[in-house]
Amino acid sequence: MHQLDFTLSAGPVMATPRTLAAMGEPIVYHYDPEFLERFRRVEKKAAQVFQTKNDVFLMQGEAILALESVARSMVTEGMHVLNLAQGVFGKGMGYWLTEFGATLHEIEVPYNEAVSPESVALYLKGHPEVEMISMVHSETPSGTITNCKEIGKIARKHGALTLVDAVSSIGGLEFKTDAWNMDVVVTGAQKCLGGPAGIGMVAVSDRAWSHILANPRAPRDSYLSIIDWKTKWRDEGRFPFTPSVSDIYGVESVLDQVLEEGLEKSIRRHARSAEVTRVGAVAMGLKLWAASIDISANCLTTIALPDSVNDVEMRTHIRTRYGVMLSSGQGAGNLLRIAHMGPSASGMYPIVGLAAVGRGLIDKGIRGIDLGAGIDAAMAELARNGGTS
Amino acid sequence: MHQLDFTLSAGPVMATPRTLAAMGEPIVYHYDPEFLERFRRVEKKAAQVFQTKNDVFLMQGEAILALESVARSMVTEGMHVLNLAQGVFGKGMGYWLTEFGATLHEIEVPYNEAVSPESVALYLKGHPEVEMISMVHSETPSGTITNCKEIGKIARKHGALTLVDAVSSIGGLEFKTDAWNMDVVVTGAQKCLGGPAGIGMVAVSDRAWSHILANPRAPRDSYLSIIDWKTKWRDEGRFPFTPSVSDIYGVESVLDQVLEEGLEKSIRRHARSAEVTRVGAVAMGLKLWAASIDISANCLTTIALPDSVNDVEMRTHIRTRYGVMLSSGQGAGNLLRIAHMGPSASGMYPIVGLAAVGRGLIDKGIRGIDLGAGIDAAMAELARNGGTS
Amino acid sequence: MHQLDFTLSAGPVMATPRTLAAMGEPIVYHYDPEFLERFRRVEKKAAQVFQTKNDVFLMQGEAILALESVARSMVTEGMHVLNLAQGVFGKGMGYWLTEFGATLHEIEVPYNEAVSPESVALYLKGHPEVEMISMVHSETPSGTITNCKEIGKIARKHGALTLVDAVSSIGGLEFKTDAWNMDVVVTGAQKCLGGPAGIGMVAVSDRAWSHILANPRAPRDSYLSIIDWKTKWRDEGRFPFTPSVSDIYGVESVLDQVLEEGLEKSIRRHARSAEVTRVGAVAMGLKLWAASIDISANCLTTIALPDSVNDVEMRTHIRTRYGVMLSSGQGAGNLLRIAHMGPSASGMYPIVGLAAVGRGLIDKGIRGIDLGAGIDAAMAELARNGGTS
Amino acid sequence: MHQLDFTLSAGPVMATPRTLAAMGEPIVYHYDPEFLERFRRVEKKAAQVFQTKNDVFLMQGEAILALESVARSMVTEGMHVLNLAQGVFGKGMGYWLTEFGATLHEIEVPYNEAVSPESVALYLKGHPEVEMISMVHSETPSGTITNCKEIGKIARKHGALTLVDAVSSIGGLEFKTDAWNMDVVVTGAQKCLGGPAGIGMVAVSDRAWSHILANPRAPRDSYLSIIDWKTKWRDEGRFPFTPSVSDIYGVESVLDQVLEEGLEKSIRRHARSAEVTRVGAVAMGLKLWAASIDISANCLTTIALPDSVNDVEMRTHIRTRYGVMLSSGQGAGNLLRIAHMGPSASGMYPIVGLAAVGRGLIDKGIRGIDLGAGIDAAMAELARNGGTS
Repeated sequence: MHQLDFTLSAGPVMATPRTLAAMGEPIVYHYDPEFLERFRRVEKKAAQVFQTKNDVFLMQGEAILALESVARSMVTEGMHVLNLAQGVFGKGMGYWLTEFGATLHEIEVPYNEAVSPESVALYLKGHPEVEMISMVHSETPSGTITNCKEIGKIARKHGALTLVDAVSSIGGLEFKTDAWNMDVVVTGAQKCLGGPAGIGMVAVSDRAWSHILANPRAPRDSYLSIIDWKTKWRDEGRFPFTPSVSDIYGVESVLDQVLEEGLEKSIRRHARSAEVTRVGAVAMGLKLWAASIDISANCLTTIALPDSVNDVEMRTHIRTRYGVMLSSGQGAGNLLRIAHMGPSASGMYPIVGLAAVGRGLIDKGIRGIDLGAGIDAAMAELARNGGTS
Repeated sequence: MHQLDFTLSAGPVMATPRTLAAMGEPIVYHYDPEFLERFRRVEKKAAQVFQTKNDVFLMQGEAILALESVARSMVTEGMHVLNLAQGVFGKGMGYWLTEFGATLHEIEVPYNEAVSPESVALYLKGHPEVEMISMVHSETPSGTITNCKEIGKIARKHGALTLVDAVSSIGGLEFKTDAWNMDVVVTGAQKCLGGPAGIGMVAVSDRAWSHILANPRAPRDSYLSIIDWKTKWRDEGRFPFTPSVSDIYGVESVLDQVLEEGLEKSIRRHARSAEVTRVGAVAMGLKLWAASIDISANCLTTIALPDSVNDVEMRTHIRTRYGVMLSSGQGAGNLLRIAHMGPSASGMYPIVGLAAVGRGLIDKGIRGIDLGAGIDAAMAELARNGGTS
Repeated sequence: MHQLDFTLSAGPVMATPRTLAAMGEPIVYHYDPEFLERFRRVEKKAAQVFQTKNDVFLMQGEAILALESVARSMVTEGMHVLNLAQGVFGKGMGYWLTEFGATLHEIEVPYNEAVSPESVALYLKGHPEVEMISMVHSETPSGTITNCKEIGKIARKHGALTLVDAVSSIGGLEFKTDAWNMDVVVTGAQKCLGGPAGIGMVAVSDRAWSHILANPRAPRDSYLSIIDWKTKWRDEGRFPFTPSVSDIYGVESVLDQVLEEGLEKSIRRHARSAEVTRVGAVAMGLKLWAASIDISANCLTTIALPDSVNDVEMRTHIRTRYGVMLSSGQGAGNLLRIAHMGPSASGMYPIVGLAAVGRGLIDKGIRGIDLGAGIDAAMAELARNGGTS
Repeated sequence: MHQLDFTLSAGPVMATPRTLAAMGEPIVYHYDPEFLERFRRVEKKAAQVFQTKNDVFLMQGEAILALESVARSMVTEGMHVLNLAQGVFGKGMGYWLTEFGATLHEIEVPYNEAVSPESVALYLKGHPEVEMISMVHSETPSGTITNCKEIGKIARKHGALTLVDAVSSIGGLEFKTDAWNMDVVVTGAQKCLGGPAGIGMVAVSDRAWSHILANPRAPRDSYLSIIDWKTKWRDEGRFPFTPSVSDIYGVESVLDQVLEEGLEKSIRRHARSAEVTRVGAVAMGLKLWAASIDISANCLTTIALPDSVNDVEMRTHIRTRYGVMLSSGQGAGNLLRIAHMGPSASGMYPIVGLAAVGRGLIDKGIRGIDLGAGIDAAMAELARNGGTS
């Protein structure tokens, strides 16, 4: 097996040396005065990246912990929730909402399409009882995005709360928590921020807090409890338990990096890397998975595989022979994913991904792949857009 | 404020440069073949440190996540559980057990004492309905230990399962999972192992697994679920969610370090550091908190403070003026804690802790502290025991 | 300017995370017993990589310090030295030898050719007075190699000492100090070993030592003195001055890495990366600088540039727009260098270099570059040779 | 042997985690545009710490390389140089000056005393031919300082150039290059700056440059040449050879740290640590080596040992049993040195050093050591001076 040279997977992604240096900083006691100050500083920087004035909480586990926590905290007995299912994570949220006690409403579309704002508006018109809409901004397994901006307007007009999984988008794709009326938003550090996996960040609006604090089913005195973080940490300065000190360092570092670069510039960088990859893939004769460019998430390019090869097998072959780690379809379909997340959304990384995918398919006997044409086109696009700098 | 020079707190503790280097290793995709292999390797190394043949699971959050998970998984509706409460964590477990549905039995003693095996045997004789005993091996806030070895024998004889919080002991204090009949044992990496805080390790016996898998109340499809780790990861090789890649690196590193040193040698090192500190503290005129040496945990020395000073205030003063971070009583009492955990259970670190505590008390006007005599005695003890090497 | 993503320059080169971690290890006192042991260990490991039983010395500066030191130490007043000049460094050595007192003999060839063993044999036949032959194994600025193996035989037969600059070859190209009769050999860590620049390593044969110790002009009591290292350090255990502690860590790490990989395997890896690059370059329509494959050094591929573009300008353009750092001709000619040294002699790094060079030339209006054909051919070669693993 | 816990030696010294992180930053090509900018930035920051408007050069080797370089560059044939010899390094400089061609004048005093400005003035009065005065600001092996400020005035009045070894003082002791008329000044990073050993920094006045450039004996085209750095690097932007990239990172980091702290504050911190140590040593019954406090260098405390023990043996014993690395006398006398350099000039590090020395002597049967009284007094002094913060 060739050693790992390139991590172009869909999270965790390669981290910058600066991020890694932060992860290796001396571990200190969580009540050290400098750590207390740092923890609060990280919350504030996270809020900047969420583009929110709401409180942001740092939950001590992968983003899915934060998603479970807020879903449990928001769902009251029998609450009518409209869930938008356009991918693996959206579908999964529907199961959770039901388990946690909601009356589930769902709009589902094939996983290479997106739920349109129009269909949401129409559904709500027919279902005035819906109190909350849950959605996934960027469906990482399939590479599609949801139009949160428009759906946020519709939700506000309807008077519904919004619960948003923005795990793989914040930092690399445009997402405006406050301007878009997003009540509860969860993100992770290991995607477009290029950080460690062990922290889930949650922004909660005042409206959502009123709802949560009044919900007797919301977890309390539990690792799952966001209420504990509010009442113990935010209000009294006591940690509910020992936080992951090193992960906090890593998260501060990636927030610093994106804020120093500028959120707009980071978003543009992700868009350009996606554009280079899509241009190259098409020129190479590959088939993009997403139904259209409009609903393609710029944090990754999803390539539909021919039936004769299997996504996990291809992922393994490319990793083993070329030292390039990509992601497979993770249940969304027979597809390969070249991620553009954080440091990998830069310069020639897309070229590496494209060359590896193209050659891997040729190795497996797939015909009609013009590797040279693909790289040629991708490099021309890269030259045109200024090296994504 | 003086900069932080010494982290002698009761976890997280100072990490070795080697541990920190591991934390800063490149972040990779969790399905990278080398990471998959590494994850399994860490489980095996952890089992060695637990001294068990049982499966060990790496839960992705602070040890309290693992404790909550196993408590929820073990408690069936109305199950009779005997909880031993000799400190803050033992007491807290009682609240949880009740909340999770147990019928609680409790033996409680003052927090500077320990529940004796005899009292457990006596209680069980009168309560044949007890199905599980829960205990805390090392009560970190107060520095006492429970005689798990003897209680394990009693439990086995009675036919009761055991649920043990060994968070702050494994790696530094003697603990034999299998030989002592410990069914469910939880530890963390940020105490005697000197690692990151974000991983809770759990050893589960076959008897306990039978019980858990049959328990309809055990968490499933949840961040709290240890069952998910068994059925998805152990049985099928799929992670229930993205693990904290960097923390796994850190945990492997500290396990390697303790295994290379030798578990016995590490335990002796912790014992010697504790001895040096106790000898010095007594000679200095300080009062040890624990009622006797026998029940003193060697992973930290707890010093009872005079009423005229407050533990948090003292902790802050010592940190601010001398750059030494200690722990306060965390609800267990008015006491200061000098930890001997991992790297701080070594050489002259206890001297630094003692000098800081002694001088801090003198600064606050406490009389009767003979700082010089304390350091003199501690250094003599250190010289005698060979520099704890 | 695009950020730096790829360092494919001809030394210093990109270092592995493991090497960087070693560089960041705690700095200790040079007389710490563990450091003393480590220093001696590094000398021994270096000797393994030199493939020698001779003593190896770690001089505390870039390899050029070691070259100056041994040249000054070897040259006696009026000594007849035959210098082989086939590149910038060979030519420079000639100037030094003269300045240091030698009577210079020189065989010079154009910088894209190599001095043949035959011409050396012929020269010596006509010049029995030659006492030493100096040569450069791998001419880094122009990418050619000298046939040290054959010339070593000729030298031994003639009775001449050999002085060899193997700075950019050891670790990545075949070089057998003892088997080839190489008396004084210098290498650096920042080339095929992928380490720090601050250490020059020197292997000295007994014959050479006899010569040096008898040479009144050899530097003594000086930073330039290799004699000091022998008499003070080797013989008495005293450092002549404080060594660069961190660099020693880095050098040990890269020696460990190459020895763990296996020297043969590393050499093959460098050869394969060079082959992939040459195949791709030719298919792309680029012109290789070296006159033939036989004399091409596998540690870098040199590409002759058309007259209409300038090497430094191209290097800057590629770095600025694509974040790829290559090397220019450094006085050897109008050429670009894609290095295959240490970690960059691996997998798809050559592809990145080729794509950047090809596109850079297209950007500057150069015609006849078929970028796609080049990458296609290079990837096919990479697939063929097993991903260079 | 106990592991190394504390490096309190007289350089290299313990480095901060921030410094170590800098040492571990990715190695880049020395002509990378970001590195070129960084190199120039480091020169400017170094000039700030030298408190000079003169050019500062970063020579690529331990400070002794820079000292040799400037001594060779300054000494013209037969030049009359007054050398002040009050320690090992001053004495050594005299040998070098003679070897390099100077007519040596020397004022020598015992190594626990200092050459007085008065004696220099007197000597110059009698020797108008003296063209340069060479001196060592801080004699690291014996812990004494020279009054460079007053001697600088005297030199200027006399019209003599000054050549100053400030290797172990700059950053931690007051030293004003321009205000004190210091023409050529050398420092290292591995002493009061707490950095790597591989860089010597040199400040050269215009007067000195005129002298050097006119000196035919000054090294040129050599690793020893500071002229090369001026003509190639400063004037033309070409490195004379590959610089030690990682060491430059480390040096920038330590310069940043001292400039962020503030030079004045750093100097005060070193002074306080020395004061704490001296107070403690005296109270413990130890004998300070330096003849008086006025001439004691604040970067280390030198303790005279009784004849019955040997300095190297004591150093080894303390390191082996207690994990504390101190320095021995290095030829200056039978003494132990507890350094206060960079990070070790802080808080309780002096306490560790004192306790280790005191106990080590007791272990060896030395009588009259009152360890407790020493630590008591040192902690009282530390409390008084605010924890050296």
